[in-house]
Amino acid sequence: MNKKCLYVVGIGPGQYSDMTIKSAKVLNSCDVIVGYTVYCDLVRPMFEDKKFISTPMMKEEERVRLALEEADKGKKVALICSGDAGIYGLLGLVYELGTEYPKVEIKASTGVTAAISGGAVLGAPLIHDFCCISLSNRLTPFELIEKRLRAAAQTDMVIVLYNPESKSRSGFLKKACEILLEEIEEERVCGIARNIGRDGEDSQVCTLAELKDTPVDMFSTVFVGNSSTRNIMGLMVTARGYQSER
Amino acid sequence: MNKKCLYVVGIGPGQYSDMTIKSAKVLNSCDVIVGYTVYCDLVRPMFEDKKFISTPMMKEEERVRLALEEADKGKKVALICSGDAGIYGLLGLVYELGTEYPKVEIKASTGVTAAISGGAVLGAPLIHDFCCISLSNRLTPFELIEKRLRAAAQTDMVIVLYNPESKSRSGFLKKACEILLEEIEEERVCGIARNIGRDGEDSQVCTLAELKDTPVDMFSTVFVGNSSTRNIMGLMVTARGYQSER
Repeated sequence: MNKKCLYVVGIGPGQYSDMTIKSAKVLNSCDVIVGYTVYCDLVRPMFEDKKFISTPMMKEEERVRLALEEADKGKKVALICSGDAGIYGLLGLVYELGTEYPKVEIKASTGVTAAISGGAVLGAPLIHDFCCISLSNRLTPFELIEKRLRAAAQTDMVIVLYNPESKSRSGFLKKACEILLEEIEEERVCGIARNIGRDGEDSQVCTLAELKDTPVDMFSTVFVGNSSTRNIMGLMVTARGYQSER
Repeated sequence: MNKKCLYVVGIGPGQYSDMTIKSAKVLNSCDVIVGYTVYCDLVRPMFEDKKFISTPMMKEEERVRLALEEADKGKKVALICSGDAGIYGLLGLVYELGTEYPKVEIKASTGVTAAISGGAVLGAPLIHDFCCISLSNRLTPFELIEKRLRAAAQTDMVIVLYNPESKSRSGFLKKACEILLEEIEEERVCGIARNIGRDGEDSQVCTLAELKDTPVDMFSTVFVGNSSTRNIMGLMVTARGYQSER
């Protein structure tokens, strides 16, 4: 007897070759793929024979319940997230709501998150301690986001900004840069990766002062270097530490 | 005419299926694979026909130069790192030293880092803002590491500890826990993932007080939750934010 199972799958930035071998295998083995419309559209051409159930932005709880219910009916279901399902993804909510579906076993399949795929496009910004901070204030007060930005800057950690802006949160990156400029210098090396692994992929290395006035959208990931991050031949490269071995 | 090229490849935690499709393809297409002995041993059974050049621990600069020189001779070379080469990996050093080998083009192929693979083993600890902090004081003064630990705890970020201990740094995790216990409560949900994706894989969810006295080694990755991290059916699960949508 096969146990009922819901796979929660990180698809990486978007291209088939950026997926883990396991995630590609899991998607191949499933009957139904559930996800946010944009991610379903990314994956559909690679898995044309599957049934897709896509739901619009937000509505995460609805999407997760839908996937759990399909799995509870005995279907082999994959719920997809961009990047990794465990980094700002739906995996947590699946475990929370999954307690209501005790017959459904939950299995995660990992993927490459935007900090990694965007980092590789920009150079090597994350060679030393870093934090990932989402600028979305949908479920987190902006005061706490501000505290985290200051704490990271004051202790010289590289910062990766997820969800830097969206249509309803225009001006958030500028606000974040203004906070950071109170803690670190204007010339700090920064980078933006846009549409990583997708049509229109684009990246840019700049200073913090320039970053403040650079337009971004919800498909951008932003990197703020630490004091040892350098612009090497147009790439953003962070040193391995503060004491040289050379 | 083919340009000379050095691939810098993240192999993920260790199993073939946890690699990205691209990283597996790149390794397949190379003549020579260069890496730290332990990582070469992990990968060798999957790519038996390749020439392997392994170098012992530390000696990172030597390893990188060796790879660049092989590539400069016209060989198709992959330099491998565990996890992702851009997260505490050798990619930065490759770009730094690569300026001395102007004919060698450097290409990165991403992999799943221990924060992701370890997170998936433990549950979903990284659903909200987090930082990765290495406890190695080889190139970073411990005072700065301590500041980062306090800053992360004070601003309620989830913390992932890389390199929690090694033979020469025994007692470092205990020291880090003592610092964190001055900032956050004893019952904070924590987790340890050991030998992720390798023989002897093992994980454990515990409290911060328990973590303090738990033995770890250089193949362990440690997670300290934020105030909304819960132990759900033995898994470490962080909430998506502080305001509920339900």
